[in-house]
Amino acid sequence: MDTPILNKVNVIKVGGAVVEDGQMLSALLEGFAALEGAKVLVHGGGRSATKMAAALGIETRMVEGRRVTDEEMLRVVQMVYGGLVNKTLVARLQSLGVNAVGLTGADMNIIRAHKRAPKLVRFEDGHEETVDYGWVGDVDSADGEALALLLRHKPCVIPVVAPLTHDGKGHMLNTNADTMAAETAKALTPHFDVTLTYCFEKPGVLRNADDDSSVIREIDEASFAQLKSDGIVSGGMLPKLENAFASLRGGVSEVVITHWSDLRHERGTVIRL
Amino acid sequence: MDTPILNKVNVIKVGGAVVEDGQMLSALLEGFAALEGAKVLVHGGGRSATKMAAALGIETRMVEGRRVTDEEMLRVVQMVYGGLVNKTLVARLQSLGVNAVGLTGADMNIIRAHKRAPKLVRFEDGHEETVDYGWVGDVDSADGEALALLLRHKPCVIPVVAPLTHDGKGHMLNTNADTMAAETAKALTPHFDVTLTYCFEKPGVLRNADDDSSVIREIDEASFAQLKSDGIVSGGMLPKLENAFASLRGGVSEVVITHWSDLRHERGTVIRL
Repeated sequence: MDTPILNKVNVIKVGGAVVEDGQMLSALLEGFAALEGAKVLVHGGGRSATKMAAALGIETRMVEGRRVTDEEMLRVVQMVYGGLVNKTLVARLQSLGVNAVGLTGADMNIIRAHKRAPKLVRFEDGHEETVDYGWVGDVDSADGEALALLLRHKPCVIPVVAPLTHDGKGHMLNTNADTMAAETAKALTPHFDVTLTYCFEKPGVLRNADDDSSVIREIDEASFAQLKSDGIVSGGMLPKLENAFASLRGGVSEVVITHWSDLRHERGTVIRL
Repeated sequence: MDTPILNKVNVIKVGGAVVEDGQMLSALLEGFAALEGAKVLVHGGGRSATKMAAALGIETRMVEGRRVTDEEMLRVVQMVYGGLVNKTLVARLQSLGVNAVGLTGADMNIIRAHKRAPKLVRFEDGHEETVDYGWVGDVDSADGEALALLLRHKPCVIPVVAPLTHDGKGHMLNTNADTMAAETAKALTPHFDVTLTYCFEKPGVLRNADDDSSVIREIDEASFAQLKSDGIVSGGMLPKLENAFASLRGGVSEVVITHWSDLRHERGTVIRL
């Protein structure tokens, strides 16, 4: 019985808006707990970090959807992602019978990254500026072996991954949660048949942002290029789709972008190469 | 070669003052990294939590050395212990070649507790008051099996334990770090020959608080009773020693209270039954 179930793993990425709403979170965690077999939850928490920073008098600066992370902001995201959000999810999952363990990239060295070098950014208004993102990590390597050890343990230990990595030199780094999910999924491909689900508060990738019934059922690389040039897909959805394609190229079997209540993929957008 | 080393485990508890000082912390972590074989680091962080609470406009109330932990304060300790202090220690240890994993009691369900019931406290000035400590956890059980799984893995995974537990009903709980260390040590006794070291900024239990050369070399239950009634041992040292005796009664082989630079026990106070 066990082997066919354990051969598959579901990597579920859930965004900040869902994690930070009590009712949505409860329903999401129940859905996650009900999924059979090996699974990994990767979470965000950006809104909470922005709120906590504000409460501490620290201003949040976002450039191209990425948080500029100076020393003070790193402390905030380390606290909010690694302590507040991560441990709340772990305690809640334990109460639902899921033997969760909260991890950042530093824990068991599962995801190692390097500090992003200052980068020339062209802004929408046309001006250019060299942006130092600070303690933001671009991923170098992910260790699926350590995660597989946990997932194969009896009873199965379920990783809950916070969007933080480390540089191997003693520093934590703030890392995009969609990227964390993609890297985690790819790292597991030598050990499992991997499905990656990006779930959020929309029913999938929409043709018309204001119409929840306009879900695009399937996107491949050719249609992605078209959707991009038509301006139908833009903003935060672009890096999410780029992460999705990178995962598929890295050996992930299936990537689905869907509503947080649809962890079994009865709706949503399927991404194909 | 491996078996005799892995049969022993060192559980090291390090207090807030050491963790929160850059220079002491660096030296402590180097000493910890240099210890051979299986080991566990249990940390505090109370001073950082008090500072963070103050920065957020939250007042800290301590009763008998224990933090009163309402919903807001729980968020602070969850952030500071589970995110800020714990992940900083993990990242620093990784940079020293120690394959650390940061854990709270909720992670892998290693330490389960229950919320402390409101308690009648007699204060030093003689008045009595029923104190509701809030989200403070008194430990029910600790799972040495999960910790042993990590410690026996090749390469050895080293737990770094934050002073937080969970109640199994979805809530995190604030738990005294000395107690966490004692419970962790006891839970490991079916799997290892366990040594527990309480290390702090003093060279051991002092006969005269102002004289660092007055270290009491050995304390047993009889001499503890005498030291207590003579008022030589008092305050925060009392629960530490009670935790030490509880560990020994629970099967821990050796308990030493010593300076953070003395992880090999060349000095310090040895506790015996």
